[in-house]
Amino acid sequence: MYSASVYIALMHFPVYNRNGQVVTTAVANMDIHDIARTARTYGVKRFFIVTPIPEQKELVSRILHHWKEGYGAEFNPSRKEAFDMTEVRKDLDEVLASIRKTDPEVQLVATGASLDNALIRHDALGKAIRESRQAQLLLFGTGSGLTKDIVDLADCCLEPIRGPAAYNHLSVRAAVAITLDRLLGR
Amino acid sequence: MYSASVYIALMHFPVYNRNGQVVTTAVANMDIHDIARTARTYGVKRFFIVTPIPEQKELVSRILHHWKEGYGAEFNPSRKEAFDMTEVRKDLDEVLASIRKTDPEVQLVATGASLDNALIRHDALGKAIRESRQAQLLLFGTGSGLTKDIVDLADCCLEPIRGPAAYNHLSVRAAVAITLDRLLGR
Repeated sequence: MYSASVYIALMHFPVYNRNGQVVTTAVANMDIHDIARTARTYGVKRFFIVTPIPEQKELVSRILHHWKEGYGAEFNPSRKEAFDMTEVRKDLDEVLASIRKTDPEVQLVATGASLDNALIRHDALGKAIRESRQAQLLLFGTGSGLTKDIVDLADCCLEPIRGPAAYNHLSVRAAVAITLDRLLGR
Repeated sequence: MYSASVYIALMHFPVYNRNGQVVTTAVANMDIHDIARTARTYGVKRFFIVTPIPEQKELVSRILHHWKEGYGAEFNPSRKEAFDMTEVRKDLDEVLASIRKTDPEVQLVATGASLDNALIRHDALGKAIRESRQAQLLLFGTGSGLTKDIVDLADCCLEPIRGPAAYNHLSVRAAVAITLDRLLGR
């Protein structure tokens, strides 16, 4: 087990759409389930679903309640275990305020398929997580990725995932899985 | 780029449900999209969606047609590119017959969270793929995993994915992503 706290946030705003416009994406039920299970598998401390839209926050809260305390908790205890560390927040400030209650110093790491500046390699970040106590918050964008404003806020950017092919259109669910495995899986 | 052909099959039958009964699972639209994109990213030669139910085959064919040749192909060319190597088949025999037209010799590799017999490690299989021309077909189970009959048919079993935590309930979409990255991503 590694020693630093690792957090992840799935951002639904501010992100780009396919045309480069800043939008708020809808929360996908599948994202919540998939990413919570992956996060729990890799020992992530908390998974934050970030959306500024009150109705979307309410929807996510109801889904989480179903699996944490409602019928779902009895039906599928392993899903409860994954959702016990999953929370919904309105923005990055709220996420950071929540993390700082237990981890006052946290490094913000942006991720994305087209990042090319201030890159840190997966092996270097994985080593830092294993060997230091510096908490890390990994930011993942939905839609076509995090906006420049959010990337500029981050302390560093993680090198994009590349396969052997030129094609580079992973889903955010696959990107989270591969990223956590590269950082925490060995 | 590696030299062997790698194929993957997502099996909807025969698989276990949560109670250990042999069932046919429903095809999930999200699986098709996610796994096709991941497969394309890692240079997989073909992704087979396997279901014996005619109505499910028809549904998958319609989804694939939409993105390969219908409106979707124009709307999202990168999705077309992923779906161009995605096919639906009724069973493993049909998959093997299709592969053998171009790759007469193919090794069957079972995957699953609870496999414990005849295990091959990710690095060993990755090395084999890079250094030999032996084609590989990776079998992924939906539901609670491939049945013993299918596992027994396979030439070998891939070591299960483990994170640092004891929890071990990845979605099949996450398992495919992590497996392909471990085998083909470096």
